[in-house]
Amino acid sequence: MGGGDRHVARMAEAAERAVEAGLAGLLVTPSADLVYLAGYDPPPLERLTCLVLRAGSDPVLVVPELEKLRAQGSPGGRLVELAGWRDGEDPHELVRRMLTNGASYGITDTAPAVHALALREGPGARFELVPASRAGLALRVTKDAEEIELLSRAAAGADRAFERIAETTFTGRTEAQIAATLGGLLREEGHDSVAFTIVGSGSNAASPHHEPGGRVVGPGDPVVLDFGGRVGGYCSDISRTVCVGAPPPRFHEVYEVVRRAQELAFRTIRPGVPAEDVDRAARGAIEAAGLGERFVHRTGHGIGLEEHEPPYIVAGNREPLGPGMCFSVEPGVYLEGEFGVRIEDIVVVTEDGARRLNEAPRDLHTVA
Amino acid sequence: MGGGDRHVARMAEAAERAVEAGLAGLLVTPSADLVYLAGYDPPPLERLTCLVLRAGSDPVLVVPELEKLRAQGSPGGRLVELAGWRDGEDPHELVRRMLTNGASYGITDTAPAVHALALREGPGARFELVPASRAGLALRVTKDAEEIELLSRAAAGADRAFERIAETTFTGRTEAQIAATLGGLLREEGHDSVAFTIVGSGSNAASPHHEPGGRVVGPGDPVVLDFGGRVGGYCSDISRTVCVGAPPPRFHEVYEVVRRAQELAFRTIRPGVPAEDVDRAARGAIEAAGLGERFVHRTGHGIGLEEHEPPYIVAGNREPLGPGMCFSVEPGVYLEGEFGVRIEDIVVVTEDGARRLNEAPRDLHTVA
Repeated sequence: MGGGDRHVARMAEAAERAVEAGLAGLLVTPSADLVYLAGYDPPPLERLTCLVLRAGSDPVLVVPELEKLRAQGSPGGRLVELAGWRDGEDPHELVRRMLTNGASYGITDTAPAVHALALREGPGARFELVPASRAGLALRVTKDAEEIELLSRAAAGADRAFERIAETTFTGRTEAQIAATLGGLLREEGHDSVAFTIVGSGSNAASPHHEPGGRVVGPGDPVVLDFGGRVGGYCSDISRTVCVGAPPPRFHEVYEVVRRAQELAFRTIRPGVPAEDVDRAARGAIEAAGLGERFVHRTGHGIGLEEHEPPYIVAGNREPLGPGMCFSVEPGVYLEGEFGVRIEDIVVVTEDGARRLNEAPRDLHTVA
Repeated sequence: MGGGDRHVARMAEAAERAVEAGLAGLLVTPSADLVYLAGYDPPPLERLTCLVLRAGSDPVLVVPELEKLRAQGSPGGRLVELAGWRDGEDPHELVRRMLTNGASYGITDTAPAVHALALREGPGARFELVPASRAGLALRVTKDAEEIELLSRAAAGADRAFERIAETTFTGRTEAQIAATLGGLLREEGHDSVAFTIVGSGSNAASPHHEPGGRVVGPGDPVVLDFGGRVGGYCSDISRTVCVGAPPPRFHEVYEVVRRAQELAFRTIRPGVPAEDVDRAARGAIEAAGLGERFVHRTGHGIGLEEHEPPYIVAGNREPLGPGMCFSVEPGVYLEGEFGVRIEDIVVVTEDGARRLNEAPRDLHTVA
């Protein structure tokens, strides 16, 4: 299917799914959703851009007048009606005129509050706005073959970046230096851009989203590496925990608990299984080792055009998994003041189970 | 003033200003506001992070449990109470418990709709949320000496990048190639990062936010260059229009109209003058030349930790300018299918007028 056909089909399906969810339409602001539906990715600035999708009506893209030519030149620009607004005019009123009082509309989760609140509170506005995720509209949750191919390429590039960084010398270098090297390796291994490179060493490894800093890595340090970027718009995200020489007391034991939790969670995945069951499998293994309180985050998150997107692998999410869903499986244990361990792969749900997209070794690797 | 003292003072002032605006407090999500107030810049992900500022109460930073150590390690982390929430818990309820029913709270303009709507619509929630800008809370609009110094350094680096790109050969290169060179020059001239590099050649110059592409630049092409990045967190943003050899018919005339409009707008600036008067000065000059309809955007925008922020130099904005405000002055004329011209400087309002931070020549420059 060509780019244009694909976007037409996606916009039509989104409008249909909105109706099934009891909504009269969707308001899509700049985001991965807008890229997915209309192939348009404007600069992330303060002026309102909004794709208005309504069942039975053609799509309308509301754009700042000064970005009208840019929008026209995008894949979606040829498929939608463009409604420009000029500085000084009220873009919210322009959108409101397309909406029906008494109805509910879905709105992009990340739509800026300044727009969402203004849209709903204008004179005479009597419709409801519901964040797309709360309406159950995870438009991008099932990946097609082309999307899985891009996620696979991204994962393979991240695997190679890990294997190469694991051959370098960590001792004597700062976290920030190792992070910079890792970013370079991601690019060399086919990534178009680098999104994040977490390098948490020693007790910093106990901070899951640690910002790499000036700490010099040395013998005995466990190091959590968690990094990713984009290939053709689609994200990679992998975590491995390595150790510089001989690890501290208890490290081997904790590492094995996490490795086993990750394996058990992976084996739980198949179509029809509720997302929370995958979390429960990982959590159960860690709780059995008496470390449940130290697993301070959910087991995983969906991945695609965004680093984090549905499905979330978290207690309370009873949505059944289905073929084509892609997400991370990343249990971790964090001992404040000591160290942390996290092992993460991206997986895709298949017809009868799941397949890992990351294949870098999960056995404990000792670095220099 | 040290980093910590500065953040304490800024948070206290923000809470006071919220009260003056009739608000019971402020909800600050990850944004330039959070960096400014609390020195905290978490990863831009989906979990709620929110600084709760209330008059008469100590600041509380609501953070995902897995980012608590990261938050503690930031400048603001030592100055506020940290309230962690775990995956599966409801962070919105945690914030709501700190709010008073019947009151109004300001919220960061860019707060994601999924959070803003959930905060306001929880069980028993009977308070109002007002986007900070609509409450008149432009917290960062007046820059101090240190901020102006960083903006000056950013502007000087952008000036040098322009002067260097203007010495290169444009003929035979694509817009995207010239944009890549420009990004490299910004880094060489002291920028920590590059935010955008617009290169619009020939008829693409008529698209103010053109995305540089595969068009090969050749003799007779006008080229709009509009680019910027960050130095110490503060932004640069400059536009110049050059021509490859001899320009097309009418180009000189239009260029002179824009240059004169930019000069007249600049001369209008002094404390007490309403922002819209600066727009009117530029627009009047362009209208007098019969080109008013082709000036399709406002005259300028504030600049600081964000590329675009208050004050907006636009019809309808009667806010008086004051010393320390920094903004762009960037009139333009766009002739669809032909060419465009834009000239932009960043200026700072002084005690008795204004000073340009950009000093790159504004006379028409011919490139090879």
